[in-house]
Amino acid sequence: MPDSSLFRLSVSRCFGGTVAVYHHTSRECRCDMRFSIYLPPQAEREPVPVLYYLSGLTCTEENFTTKAGAQRYAAEYGLALVAPDTSPRGEGVPDDPNAWDFGMGAGFYVDATIAPWDRHYRTYSYVVTELPELVAAHFPIRGDRAGICGHSMGGHGALVCGLRHRDRYRSISALAPIAAPMQCPWGEKAFTGYLGDDRTAWQAYDATALVATHADPSRILLVDVGTADPFLAQGQLLPEVFAAACQAAGQPLTLRRQSDYDHGYYFVATFIGDHIRHHAAVLHG
Amino acid sequence: MPDSSLFRLSVSRCFGGTVAVYHHTSRECRCDMRFSIYLPPQAEREPVPVLYYLSGLTCTEENFTTKAGAQRYAAEYGLALVAPDTSPRGEGVPDDPNAWDFGMGAGFYVDATIAPWDRHYRTYSYVVTELPELVAAHFPIRGDRAGICGHSMGGHGALVCGLRHRDRYRSISALAPIAAPMQCPWGEKAFTGYLGDDRTAWQAYDATALVATHADPSRILLVDVGTADPFLAQGQLLPEVFAAACQAAGQPLTLRRQSDYDHGYYFVATFIGDHIRHHAAVLHG
Repeated sequence: MPDSSLFRLSVSRCFGGTVAVYHHTSRECRCDMRFSIYLPPQAEREPVPVLYYLSGLTCTEENFTTKAGAQRYAAEYGLALVAPDTSPRGEGVPDDPNAWDFGMGAGFYVDATIAPWDRHYRTYSYVVTELPELVAAHFPIRGDRAGICGHSMGGHGALVCGLRHRDRYRSISALAPIAAPMQCPWGEKAFTGYLGDDRTAWQAYDATALVATHADPSRILLVDVGTADPFLAQGQLLPEVFAAACQAAGQPLTLRRQSDYDHGYYFVATFIGDHIRHHAAVLHG
Repeated sequence: MPDSSLFRLSVSRCFGGTVAVYHHTSRECRCDMRFSIYLPPQAEREPVPVLYYLSGLTCTEENFTTKAGAQRYAAEYGLALVAPDTSPRGEGVPDDPNAWDFGMGAGFYVDATIAPWDRHYRTYSYVVTELPELVAAHFPIRGDRAGICGHSMGGHGALVCGLRHRDRYRSISALAPIAAPMQCPWGEKAFTGYLGDDRTAWQAYDATALVATHADPSRILLVDVGTADPFLAQGQLLPEVFAAACQAAGQPLTLRRQSDYDHGYYFVATFIGDHIRHHAAVLHG
């Protein structure tokens, strides 16, 4: 029986609900992991649906929680928000101190199979299994009403987790996702490091590859990307490649190109309300 | 003729407008100063009213800009937002490295008269004169339609600047302000250091003292404070002392005690929408 104790680091009133940060010993990542959770006012009366939010490169649980302004919409629509850290951290957890796009802060939501990463870098299983179990055990959440959203590397994670687990996530969206990681420099570097050289092993973590076999016509994906996003120009995001794969597979996708927006949190803050509405419509449906 | 050149450090699209950070050589503070400005979509067509926001202890121009979620409301109501740094900074600017409530990050919006602070710590004149001139010269702002708001130390600043300059600020509000600084430890320390031991010199920077001579029945002040604010319990904020002074002077005040909210940016984010509506009703009136 794994230890499922939670320790609260902070709690504040926010839009009539509460935003809190917890840490716990993760069985998957074999280290202390943090996540933030926002419980809307509705959660004081009854269990509420939950939206998981996965952050991007270099982020922790803090970026989305303090900068996206999402609590306002979560309070309006009666959703809980859960935002985990993006990688294992701490003493004994390997890192590449010269890279910001690999190692700590850059777990890419995979279960690594290559040493030394394989012992701790298991953020895929952490997100899809351990974290939902923990949240369901401790908070007034409807575990059967969950959606998943993310930004950049976390948008990749949200698409992958959501496509692979239609039973666990009823709704999926992404902001500026790395949508075809097998075909971009960030993804190739991360997958080589965490998963090795055999590209067939990468397909389980590539939304563009997955959608061919995991399309679900009953769920419309929502994806936003800014036209002034420098990583779009650099070919790291490849939303058009993902869109073509969705079309070929019969996966409904609403892809919106937002004029002049860049990759940062002002972009996220501007459109997170639309994403929360997208999820709420499904999760309260 | 002072140099009024502005240099842009960043710009991003945000809620249909733009958020940018500038730096410039300040004639008042005799150093490089930064401020952020949000221009709502309406500013692309015509000049818009402006709300100045003064931040609290330890803050820079960044805290409010990234964490308050205010741009959403500014876009809705057609107001520009301007948020300056809280003190002079840089080489040659004196500091008390052992204090977070005095020196850099803690200018208290006064014009210091005591050496060595008097040469650079002139954030009062910076806020009420230099910054509005600069903003009017460079941006599509209606300089005759300005309001002022602030948080904590910046709430003190907003009340003081607003009360002393009814011609420059048509509307005033504050979140968890240090509302009677002459009567609290933070204020006594700051005023002694910046202004000296003669308490009569302090009165020009104490909202509770000022309201006796600067009440304006035509302006309703809006002040929010959280009941779980630890600095309220420590007697640093003293909203009840300010409220009594307002009542005695005939200054209309809406003082709201927000149950269970603390002093942080989740409190600011929750209520900044009400404050922006308060200012917009006056500034568009």
